Amino acid sequence: MKGDRMAEVKQVEWLAVEWFEHRLSVWAMQGSTALEAAVCATSAADEDTFVDTLTQLIAPLNLPAGLPVFAAGLPGRSDVSPRTVPCDAMAAETVARTSAGFELHIIPGLRQHSPSGLMQGAETRIAGFLSLNKDWDGVICLPGATSVWAQVSAGEVVSFQSFLTGELIDMLGADGPAEVDTALDDTAFDEALSDGLSRPERLAGRLASLRADRALGALPAPTAHARLAGILIGAELAAARPYWLGQSLAVMGPEGQASLYMRALSQQGAMATQADAARMALAGICAVRRAVGNAG
Amino acid sequence: MKGDRMAEVKQVEWLAVEWFEHRLSVWAMQGSTALEAAVCATSAADEDTFVDTLTQLIAPLNLPAGLPVFAAGLPGRSDVSPRTVPCDAMAAETVARTSAGFELHIIPGLRQHSPSGLMQGAETRIAGFLSLNKDWDGVICLPGATSVWAQVSAGEVVSFQSFLTGELIDMLGADGPAEVDTALDDTAFDEALSDGLSRPERLAGRLASLRADRALGALPAPTAHARLAGILIGAELAAARPYWLGQSLAVMGPEGQASLYMRALSQQGAMATQADAARMALAGICAVRRAVGNAG
Repeated sequence: MKGDRMAEVKQVEWLAVEWFEHRLSVWAMQGSTALEAAVCATSAADEDTFVDTLTQLIAPLNLPAGLPVFAAGLPGRSDVSPRTVPCDAMAAETVARTSAGFELHIIPGLRQHSPSGLMQGAETRIAGFLSLNKDWDGVICLPGATSVWAQVSAGEVVSFQSFLTGELIDMLGADGPAEVDTALDDTAFDEALSDGLSRPERLAGRLASLRADRALGALPAPTAHARLAGILIGAELAAARPYWLGQSLAVMGPEGQASLYMRALSQQGAMATQADAARMALAGICAVRRAVGNAG
Repeated sequence: MKGDRMAEVKQVEWLAVEWFEHRLSVWAMQGSTALEAAVCATSAADEDTFVDTLTQLIAPLNLPAGLPVFAAGLPGRSDVSPRTVPCDAMAAETVARTSAGFELHIIPGLRQHSPSGLMQGAETRIAGFLSLNKDWDGVICLPGATSVWAQVSAGEVVSFQSFLTGELIDMLGADGPAEVDTALDDTAFDEALSDGLSRPERLAGRLASLRADRALGALPAPTAHARLAGILIGAELAAARPYWLGQSLAVMGPEGQASLYMRALSQQGAMATQADAARMALAGICAVRRAVGNAG
């Protein structure tokens, strides 16, 4: 009987889902409380695969059919137009459809015309951060395969700039440790960062020098990887200077990468708040659900 | 009898081999004349695999055993030290050993201490160009997965600079055409080149914008690929400016890539000679063989 009562009290009402850089995270929700969470890696990138992967991921939870799903970061389909900045950080509506038995609510991404930019998922993390930090103005940096710097003011995303830094680190660092945060050689990172920041145009040449040092056996893999990250993050900071110089800053992203960005910014005398990316994503999805009036 | 006489006259005396960016080229040589040639793609990168691949590649030629092999571009083994620039473009000695029945003569690469650089194969193409163009002084640009700019004077390689441009184009252009030279959108290339050259520090940001335009369906694949090549070659030209501004220039490399570099240089008012990379490689291997006194 006690078991039954528990089941009655803890009733999954909807699913919060984030699809972000080949990771699918799902939270089984009652109101704004997460009862269960699950994560899986996936290389797929379209909506049908998303629904398949979601079905498999939640199968062990034995959830009722037909649950509403609020999803951030879904790859664009022609009927889900991204909103154009400047605009509210929080989406005021979602695109709803039924798919494989789910009542699917898709949170649109953000786009920018010049320079061309597209966020798919980062916008909801930003919305989450703003829902927990009312009246916060400044720049939010979201490291990842594609890093995003978003200028936020009065609840709006004013503009943003993206960089392929994380993806380049992964592609070029294939012979090093898989994660940027293991056995990092801090000195190598700091020197490469400073060098990358001051002469960013030498990027492709520095990468070739690094490759040569590795081929000549002159560099251990962790040091090479630290230098690689330093070179590329340095070049990014050089190009993103207007986004961090003299700004209020928040950084949220995968733990290892976020730490590198925090270190890099602090080396330049720029102080930033670090926020938990998964927590911000969930807060953002909850906030959008409330905003579109499905809070029940 | 006539057949026998032919066989006697056209006698394969040695093999010229170049291992260059995942391609193995072999020429069956009589003196300085190539009687047969064969090429294969390979992803391997050590000397044992080299010998295996070579054995398979020449099997159909029914060659006698124990032939001398002069090989350029072999991945470094600890007993084959690259020579350090500045030094003669032409290697005065090779590292000889017997391997799988071959009398193997390995042409050493070139290295530079600052900035760190390593050539494996490009040095022999340079030696070939100089053997055919006596007293030529200037800069030789060798596009490829890793592009090399080498300052040549009085038969010496004075200094060089390498860039990972070609590899970055391949990695980032995975959704575009495999070859840079198909259906190139010249205008997109020219604009991206000019932009990349004038503000090279924006590289990672431009790559993210390009990705966004592709995701939004705003760019056909060939145009995207042309822009990608323009952005990256533009950044390379910016960093390599001392190597091409006001210099005598020669470009040799894979046809599609070499044409892009020729176009890019000409857009900047820099005129270059284009040379056939395979022909220069073979000329270089022949010249080294003569230089080390094995010309028989």
